[in-house]
Amino acid sequence: MHIQKKAHSSLNLAKNDSFDTPEKKVTHTHSHNQESNQKQSIQVDVTNYNHPPNISKLIPVSKIYSAYKLLKNVVTRTPTQKSMKLSEYFGANVYIKREDLQIVRSYKLRGAYNKIISIPENERHRTIFCASAGNHAQGVAYVCNLMKINCIIYMPTNTPSIKFNAVKSWGKQYVQIELVGDTFDESFRASREKCNTENGIYVHAFDDEKIIEGQGTIAVEVLEDINEDQVDFMFFPVGGGGCGAGISSYFKQVSPQTILIGVEPEGSPSMYEAIKQQQIVELETINTFVDGAAIKKSGAKPFDILNSVLKEVVLIPEGHVCTTMMKLFNEEGILVEPAGALAISALDKFKDQIKGKTVVCLISGSNNDLGRMTDIRMLSEIHQGLQYYMFVNFFQKPGALKQFLIQCLGPTDEVTNLEYTRKNNREKGPALVGVKVKKPQDFEAMKNKMEELKITHRILQPNQEIFKMLL
Amino acid sequence: MHIQKKAHSSLNLAKNDSFDTPEKKVTHTHSHNQESNQKQSIQVDVTNYNHPPNISKLIPVSKIYSAYKLLKNVVTRTPTQKSMKLSEYFGANVYIKREDLQIVRSYKLRGAYNKIISIPENERHRTIFCASAGNHAQGVAYVCNLMKINCIIYMPTNTPSIKFNAVKSWGKQYVQIELVGDTFDESFRASREKCNTENGIYVHAFDDEKIIEGQGTIAVEVLEDINEDQVDFMFFPVGGGGCGAGISSYFKQVSPQTILIGVEPEGSPSMYEAIKQQQIVELETINTFVDGAAIKKSGAKPFDILNSVLKEVVLIPEGHVCTTMMKLFNEEGILVEPAGALAISALDKFKDQIKGKTVVCLISGSNNDLGRMTDIRMLSEIHQGLQYYMFVNFFQKPGALKQFLIQCLGPTDEVTNLEYTRKNNREKGPALVGVKVKKPQDFEAMKNKMEELKITHRILQPNQEIFKMLL
Amino acid sequence: MHIQKKAHSSLNLAKNDSFDTPEKKVTHTHSHNQESNQKQSIQVDVTNYNHPPNISKLIPVSKIYSAYKLLKNVVTRTPTQKSMKLSEYFGANVYIKREDLQIVRSYKLRGAYNKIISIPENERHRTIFCASAGNHAQGVAYVCNLMKINCIIYMPTNTPSIKFNAVKSWGKQYVQIELVGDTFDESFRASREKCNTENGIYVHAFDDEKIIEGQGTIAVEVLEDINEDQVDFMFFPVGGGGCGAGISSYFKQVSPQTILIGVEPEGSPSMYEAIKQQQIVELETINTFVDGAAIKKSGAKPFDILNSVLKEVVLIPEGHVCTTMMKLFNEEGILVEPAGALAISALDKFKDQIKGKTVVCLISGSNNDLGRMTDIRMLSEIHQGLQYYMFVNFFQKPGALKQFLIQCLGPTDEVTNLEYTRKNNREKGPALVGVKVKKPQDFEAMKNKMEELKITHRILQPNQEIFKMLL
Amino acid sequence: MHIQKKAHSSLNLAKNDSFDTPEKKVTHTHSHNQESNQKQSIQVDVTNYNHPPNISKLIPVSKIYSAYKLLKNVVTRTPTQKSMKLSEYFGANVYIKREDLQIVRSYKLRGAYNKIISIPENERHRTIFCASAGNHAQGVAYVCNLMKINCIIYMPTNTPSIKFNAVKSWGKQYVQIELVGDTFDESFRASREKCNTENGIYVHAFDDEKIIEGQGTIAVEVLEDINEDQVDFMFFPVGGGGCGAGISSYFKQVSPQTILIGVEPEGSPSMYEAIKQQQIVELETINTFVDGAAIKKSGAKPFDILNSVLKEVVLIPEGHVCTTMMKLFNEEGILVEPAGALAISALDKFKDQIKGKTVVCLISGSNNDLGRMTDIRMLSEIHQGLQYYMFVNFFQKPGALKQFLIQCLGPTDEVTNLEYTRKNNREKGPALVGVKVKKPQDFEAMKNKMEELKITHRILQPNQEIFKMLL
Repeated sequence: MHIQKKAHSSLNLAKNDSFDTPEKKVTHTHSHNQESNQKQSIQVDVTNYNHPPNISKLIPVSKIYSAYKLLKNVVTRTPTQKSMKLSEYFGANVYIKREDLQIVRSYKLRGAYNKIISIPENERHRTIFCASAGNHAQGVAYVCNLMKINCIIYMPTNTPSIKFNAVKSWGKQYVQIELVGDTFDESFRASREKCNTENGIYVHAFDDEKIIEGQGTIAVEVLEDINEDQVDFMFFPVGGGGCGAGISSYFKQVSPQTILIGVEPEGSPSMYEAIKQQQIVELETINTFVDGAAIKKSGAKPFDILNSVLKEVVLIPEGHVCTTMMKLFNEEGILVEPAGALAISALDKFKDQIKGKTVVCLISGSNNDLGRMTDIRMLSEIHQGLQYYMFVNFFQKPGALKQFLIQCLGPTDEVTNLEYTRKNNREKGPALVGVKVKKPQDFEAMKNKMEELKITHRILQPNQEIFKMLL
Repeated sequence: MHIQKKAHSSLNLAKNDSFDTPEKKVTHTHSHNQESNQKQSIQVDVTNYNHPPNISKLIPVSKIYSAYKLLKNVVTRTPTQKSMKLSEYFGANVYIKREDLQIVRSYKLRGAYNKIISIPENERHRTIFCASAGNHAQGVAYVCNLMKINCIIYMPTNTPSIKFNAVKSWGKQYVQIELVGDTFDESFRASREKCNTENGIYVHAFDDEKIIEGQGTIAVEVLEDINEDQVDFMFFPVGGGGCGAGISSYFKQVSPQTILIGVEPEGSPSMYEAIKQQQIVELETINTFVDGAAIKKSGAKPFDILNSVLKEVVLIPEGHVCTTMMKLFNEEGILVEPAGALAISALDKFKDQIKGKTVVCLISGSNNDLGRMTDIRMLSEIHQGLQYYMFVNFFQKPGALKQFLIQCLGPTDEVTNLEYTRKNNREKGPALVGVKVKKPQDFEAMKNKMEELKITHRILQPNQEIFKMLL
Repeated sequence: MHIQKKAHSSLNLAKNDSFDTPEKKVTHTHSHNQESNQKQSIQVDVTNYNHPPNISKLIPVSKIYSAYKLLKNVVTRTPTQKSMKLSEYFGANVYIKREDLQIVRSYKLRGAYNKIISIPENERHRTIFCASAGNHAQGVAYVCNLMKINCIIYMPTNTPSIKFNAVKSWGKQYVQIELVGDTFDESFRASREKCNTENGIYVHAFDDEKIIEGQGTIAVEVLEDINEDQVDFMFFPVGGGGCGAGISSYFKQVSPQTILIGVEPEGSPSMYEAIKQQQIVELETINTFVDGAAIKKSGAKPFDILNSVLKEVVLIPEGHVCTTMMKLFNEEGILVEPAGALAISALDKFKDQIKGKTVVCLISGSNNDLGRMTDIRMLSEIHQGLQYYMFVNFFQKPGALKQFLIQCLGPTDEVTNLEYTRKNNREKGPALVGVKVKKPQDFEAMKNKMEELKITHRILQPNQEIFKMLL
Repeated sequence: MHIQKKAHSSLNLAKNDSFDTPEKKVTHTHSHNQESNQKQSIQVDVTNYNHPPNISKLIPVSKIYSAYKLLKNVVTRTPTQKSMKLSEYFGANVYIKREDLQIVRSYKLRGAYNKIISIPENERHRTIFCASAGNHAQGVAYVCNLMKINCIIYMPTNTPSIKFNAVKSWGKQYVQIELVGDTFDESFRASREKCNTENGIYVHAFDDEKIIEGQGTIAVEVLEDINEDQVDFMFFPVGGGGCGAGISSYFKQVSPQTILIGVEPEGSPSMYEAIKQQQIVELETINTFVDGAAIKKSGAKPFDILNSVLKEVVLIPEGHVCTTMMKLFNEEGILVEPAGALAISALDKFKDQIKGKTVVCLISGSNNDLGRMTDIRMLSEIHQGLQYYMFVNFFQKPGALKQFLIQCLGPTDEVTNLEYTRKNNREKGPALVGVKVKKPQDFEAMKNKMEELKITHRILQPNQEIFKMLL
């Protein structure tokens, strides 16, 4: 108990960007203490940065290695590539582990296979049940088809057909999909109940040691493939925590000097909160934008492991994830899903610490609905301060619009949207205006001009109902 | 038979404004012949302009006068006012008969009362049936409540609650309203059938001599109240034709020199077509905007009468009706329903002929849904060439919108609507632009400017689906 | 000073409907005290209800009567009609003074004439200046044309062309209009400055004794025309206060037993605040919807008078004004401007007190932009709880919309608006839904159903930006 | 001359899908003749299918091979992969040549390098000029930076910033970009003029032998890398024709039995029209959606070559291109630009002929603006008959919407969009309705239901202004 607390006191829970809660300030203090420790002896500090981790909580190396042997001929050994662009930008050796190129386009196949292969032959007539909003479902479906075991997969009713079809196409006649529940949680509960009444075998997406072992095989490949002497930093996304738990267990025992960083979406900080409160919590509402990592409640086993070894849990705003996605595609031609961009998104925050170091980022998957890309581009531009949507209150007089366009817009500012209706008998009336600027400062100039002309405005935020309604 | 044909040949069927069909040209020829006759002897011509009308078809003066006596204590004797503004504008003595001030706000009370009072006492236990989209229903409801006779009134399902409530409020416990049918015609058929099966008494809105007599009492009041020696022109709206038939019958016999002009909405020219084809026709589709006068098929009796005495049936575009409505309210403070503005709308077309003459225009009613006034103002401005809605195809480059506003808009032109979304990867994209100009020529200048800048546009018309969708 | 305070303590400042501010509670207490006084001796109380009014502050009867004589042949003597509908509804003798039928369609002609005729002959070569958003401008323009004096009228830049044209049409070559300033206040300031530099004669809209005398002639006509023995209640709208001051001065001296009630729009309570704070205040922002009575700062002279004689200033929500307007038109065929409906709107609040009494309500004017009527109908229906606009958060699953329509809508509930876009990859998404119900309780049922189905919603209010943007 | 004509008579110009012009029927006849020839002796026919090609018009093999040697160490040797999915689906060996994986993400680098390296050393101080809407610009920029030669690249003003930035990022300090002209053609003309006045070196995107040789190196790699004995069909996109001309020249001489198929977007059929009319034509308007292959006028040299060797030019509707793009990504994880999907899109049309054969499709590039993907998904679904947008004319009565949703929608049909406003006083009013169905027949059922209920509708097409405006 006392140890636990101390452990926590040295853990750095960081929210990126826009957050400035009292909690954050507290962790900043912790972080500062820790940094001063680092100055004395980095070597020691790195090895022991968390605390003597409770090794007994970790998955033994032997188990992960066994999984690796089992999986070898089933999964793709995805490349651990050095990214020239990222390495140059950060002045570091930045590697990316390309699980976007995995079969079923995410690492989830690893855990699913390791779990299902562990079912004794004489139990394989029983039906497998699971619930998933996406990647886990594909992994399970693929394995069930491979091993000719029947499975019933629960997905929420709002599952896009592209995901539904992918699961169907991997699982073929061995998979049956049930669309139940308005949210993943409802879907999950329904699958558990049905599994019980039907005496099925439940394959949880993350809270299962076999699953964790399977995902841990990523670490085996990374450590084998990397050219450098050692890995200084390992960044991975955290949803339920299964993947991070597997990777961390392996690294902590085989490459203890590697600093382990878990990365969560700001809108669904379940592991962040769990570690902060030193117990699993169920969040009330979450933003499901980063669908591969948006979960209300962390896994119990993953929590135990990550709580004991993580140096930091970083929270990344959704807009930042979008920017990373766009950059990855535009600059490196790599198209990932939002969760796949989490780990790389965290680098900005560590740019001082990683300079000159060897860093690995896990790209977890690429099951992306291309139809979302227009939104993602928009969110990215808003996050970067290059695109704004606002209500502008025009005086309802002739020429008000013209005046705005001529006087408030700079030479390279662009109007991207305009919905304007002039109404009589009102002094002022709102118009929806979208503008794109070349750099954030250009918008400052526009705001000043508006103020000068007494034109009031209100910027719309992507998380507002009105934004979702209009854009 | 031969006479009838000749009669027709001297009848002037005129469509106002925008029409230029072959038929029109034919009637122009007729009109021309007639005009040359006029030159020889106006006096004779005016008296005989139609032909010796088949007096036997008309309602006898005695019957209309009896109706007048009966009605005297029931209806309001509405004023026949001289309009200073119209008189000045046309250089004529223009009178308006204010049936907008009638109880139930339309002349329909006259016919309804005259019809229902004619039902023998011993039949008054039977239920009265009728169908109406509005004014006739109010007239019937008022009389039934007055005379304590039960009635069942059929109205279409899309009847606005304001009309529904008005009928209810006049008829109180004596009225029962059935909302049946998507159009008036469906509603009408249903009411006839029910009346038959229930052995009711049917009170038709216009195709009934008692109704026609009742409406004809308007003419008695006009001729009594007018200050001038004689009435040279009498203008009245034509829907089913009952009102026009009553007024015409009285005038033709009492003041035969008065020229009688029926006025129909351009979008529902049932009497116009009937006279042209010398038989009643049923139009396939009509524009119901001028709801008080939009009917697919004229009454048989009204047709017989009007065909024999009318000098012209004038068709008025709906936009013109709106302009008359707006002017009447803004300049004279009189608010009428669209049908109420028809007669006055026809004056423009006769401005040469009426100069120095005495003219009466019937304002038939004022049962207006105020909620329509925004549309009516818009349609009026479009009709006058002062408001335009168009798709403008902008090049999808920065600054395209600004360029348009700066270079194409004149100093007094106003943007009233703008819906613009800039899309990448397209050379051009449409925006919805609404502009208001001070005079129609200003828009010509704007069009020239757009052409010069190679900005294409397409003007949207109020009768287009896309217009109704967007505006 | 002491008297003044006591005076105030017996003054009832009431806000109608939705308000429940601490101030209101305080005035309720006052009101209660007063009511208990009333029980002892109504007669005495009515005469003295305010306090012995400071007669010296009032305009002498003789001056108002002189104005009446002067105006007699210039203005229309508008009817003081008994409203059968209102009388029946309230169980009272309710009269309406129809200044909507005045020349220039508002009482403003009275004050303007009385002021301008008072200018000595040898000063009439100077130019008259004034500022007005509407009715006062028309009055001044009419008089200047009549008396052939030049005037320059300042109006805000957002003045609708209908008002602009009306002023032009009354003033003809004698009027020059300057569109200056985004608000009335800016326009007013500009007119004062110009008047000074040009050595003009300023005709203030309300803060001028000659103006107040002119408006007071309404009271002379009312007291002459009313059939009953005495007037128990006189209700009038209050904007700047000129009209109320004139009417009150006359009544207080000629018919002291009449209870005087001023009525202000809830969105611009300048006189209410002035009386509450016992000094004129300038409001920072006001709702200009009731344009004829929306003013930031009461007149000094009017305040002095009204503060001394008013029994209550009632505040009426804008939606209530709209409902009164719709009822007046639908039930009595009288179309008024928003300010014209204020006085009648206050009757609801006094329904117990006025039972069996004689009540006069001033309809101040009818200069209405018909293009606003669609909005007015909507605001009225919202105010009555019969129309709702809301964001409904649908689960983004197939059939969500169908489910809502089938399960949440009652048999007589209607969807009037629906803007719905189903987006993938979101659990929920907002749709704009407009519904109309037959009675407010039907919406309660709908809300319960939505809650049951876990469909969240948010009702949009007319004063919200988002409402103005979307509706 | 005579030979040329005969040659043309055996050329098959096919438009895919929806086209059924008289021209097509003519070519069908040709095609039929040819097919009967095939029956006699496929072997002979295949070798000689076009005619003895005018070898003198082709680029000599030696030149293309030299280019291949030069390029070897500069460009990526992209894989020629067997697609398991396509092979299985068509019952053929379908290979894809992955130029989407090329540096600068398109094959354009090949031509650009081969051209610029051919500039003599002593001329390399002169500035290089070119015009391009995208890929060619990137190729030139990359080479100029590599070879340290300055270049000025003209791009149209509507170039998205992502393309602008990519060119900048490849060319670094050696590239200067000029945004000139609203269309590519204007941009092109400007670049030619400037190049002349500045004595620059012009690097045309396709009408240059050096460029054609460079693109022809694709063929060298394909023939080397393919596993099968021979290539039966080679499909490639055609824009200006440079790439096709290079590939065709090499194949015709080295693998003469390979049938060569050029594929053009239906909206910009410049080569199709050129071959049909036996001369280069300039199209008046084109659809620029398939930006990499949308050109108004084919190159002269490419036309000479392709006219002499092509078996068919296939036209692919833009919606079909979108469907191919979506399938490629969803099923194979390959994200291409629209032009990159052209060749594979043509396979459907040849499915009988290619059965059992070896087929190569060139994926030309992957410079895609991700922001377009939402549109691309929509266009794909519309093309497949799974998504519809329409105006539905609802009767303006309560419950009309509910009735539609309940009665017309099948159990798996989904409403994706709904914009509905109920208006009074109209019988009918349009609503925008978007629906998604599981199979095209479901929509037939919906249409029948609507007809039954007399609900009229009009389907909106993606090329309509109104579609672009609303969706």
